[in-house]
Amino acid sequence: MIQTTEQLTWIAADWGTSNLRIWLMADTGDVLHRISADCGMGSLTPDQFEPELMKLIAEHLPNGRTVPVFICGMAGAKQGWAEAPYTAVPSEPPNATTATRIKTKDSRIDVYILPGMKQKAPADVMRGEETQIAGFLAANPKFDGVICLPGTHTKWVHISAREVVSFRTFMTGELFALIADQSVLRHSTASSDWDAKAFAAAVEDAMSNPATLASKLFSIRAEALLHGQSNAVGRAKVSGLLIGAELAGARPYWLGQNIVILGEDGLSSAYQAALSAQGLPVPTVPSETMTLAGLCAAYLALESKPQ
Amino acid sequence: MIQTTEQLTWIAADWGTSNLRIWLMADTGDVLHRISADCGMGSLTPDQFEPELMKLIAEHLPNGRTVPVFICGMAGAKQGWAEAPYTAVPSEPPNATTATRIKTKDSRIDVYILPGMKQKAPADVMRGEETQIAGFLAANPKFDGVICLPGTHTKWVHISAREVVSFRTFMTGELFALIADQSVLRHSTASSDWDAKAFAAAVEDAMSNPATLASKLFSIRAEALLHGQSNAVGRAKVSGLLIGAELAGARPYWLGQNIVILGEDGLSSAYQAALSAQGLPVPTVPSETMTLAGLCAAYLALESKPQ
Repeated sequence: MIQTTEQLTWIAADWGTSNLRIWLMADTGDVLHRISADCGMGSLTPDQFEPELMKLIAEHLPNGRTVPVFICGMAGAKQGWAEAPYTAVPSEPPNATTATRIKTKDSRIDVYILPGMKQKAPADVMRGEETQIAGFLAANPKFDGVICLPGTHTKWVHISAREVVSFRTFMTGELFALIADQSVLRHSTASSDWDAKAFAAAVEDAMSNPATLASKLFSIRAEALLHGQSNAVGRAKVSGLLIGAELAGARPYWLGQNIVILGEDGLSSAYQAALSAQGLPVPTVPSETMTLAGLCAAYLALESKPQ
Repeated sequence: MIQTTEQLTWIAADWGTSNLRIWLMADTGDVLHRISADCGMGSLTPDQFEPELMKLIAEHLPNGRTVPVFICGMAGAKQGWAEAPYTAVPSEPPNATTATRIKTKDSRIDVYILPGMKQKAPADVMRGEETQIAGFLAANPKFDGVICLPGTHTKWVHISAREVVSFRTFMTGELFALIADQSVLRHSTASSDWDAKAFAAAVEDAMSNPATLASKLFSIRAEALLHGQSNAVGRAKVSGLLIGAELAGARPYWLGQNIVILGEDGLSSAYQAALSAQGLPVPTVPSETMTLAGLCAAYLALESKPQ
């Protein structure tokens, strides 16, 4: 612990709606220590952010010097710690120079919240993904193409010349959670198993006729009632139908494009399988690594900035 | 009360997932008394149905004779009072001759539960709507065309020669409730106002490109955050996008067809407006009247049946 305190140079944090992840960082870019907590933005009022953060990091802070803290995610939303106004596209992803600096009560920390990005028309917003994109571009500065970030609100992001040119959000992940866990389909989808064949067939089915989505979803319930369809098949079908409809709608973002999937393992694999069935072999990169890389890039930009 | 008891000939009931509606009927078809309760099928175990019913009707029952009770809806589901197995389409809607007769503890009632209808492929089911259809056909025996029954699970039902030929369910109403009240959009849709123009535009928008539904839905949140869009507009847009996507998917059911909408006022008006914008003036009939008419038709079939 004492060693961590001595080496601690700066702190990275991803403060989402449900969770907070913290990395205590050495100057070299090495992670000294990781901390996770469930004090997400959704459960806090603005004045609770600093005490919650200090509860988790205070014991690690050195005396006599100030540690920069770089935060991305929903902490910068209007209902968060302090609003970090969106950067409009087209633009490079935000870094320390566009961050919102927070006046803290404790002088041992110097807090920067990275802004999200916005698009005027079609109206769209992101908070958190822009930092993952910055991390990816730090390692792949010449990348030109589309980054797909699967999640609660999946993003398709067009990148050119290190800039976010345009993006579209599909609320596919949130729809999946609502439909599979809370609709009448929940009786036919509760399963920890997965049927990859049923998923692939449902992707194809929805891509060929996305308009009948609400009808094909109900059919999952009827298949269970009438033909004894298993819940593993039902669950994979809900996911396949929703992702298939999304792929049909996001076609301009992937057809003939250079694509990479940036996300967590399970959901990334589902998108990868769906795109692969369209003849697109797509590489994946892990989102947590990219988040940290993006926060590192933001910190480095601060360090190199004339003070 | 005594007069009701003397004239009471039979009882009609619509026992849904959330509510129970009862009509005490005179032989002439006149309604003597109405009763509503929130003891829906979803809150009862099979052995609770008879006591719940008796609690509501016992005081009205005559002594010395048995009163037939005709029930439609979810009381006949597998988890209901007793399973009334589905009638397969194509077929006339069920009536007393295909009803499931229940052995009751109290000999003053003779209970019949009307079955729902099922379709093998595409797999689909209904429970309750078939009785409304029977009611409509009792008054319109020569109707040939499509009945649209808007609701939690909207049905499009193809009728020919008094038979249900085929049908499709779209879970549009349930999706609306989940998205407007429980998703991230709830912050941008909570309103008792309604914007008819925004609804109409959203219907058009979704009909022209239903695949981007999950993206256009998220845009409602972004429009509120970035451009201050009102919740009345947001709510109407969610409804318009979902109904527009449904109309695109249900096109074979309404294009060039003779259509009638059978449902409750508010939702029927929304579907009527959406279809009217497609150049289809569609009449509406009220669902409660049709439910009762369908139960009456079932009762009359029992009366005319050789005992």
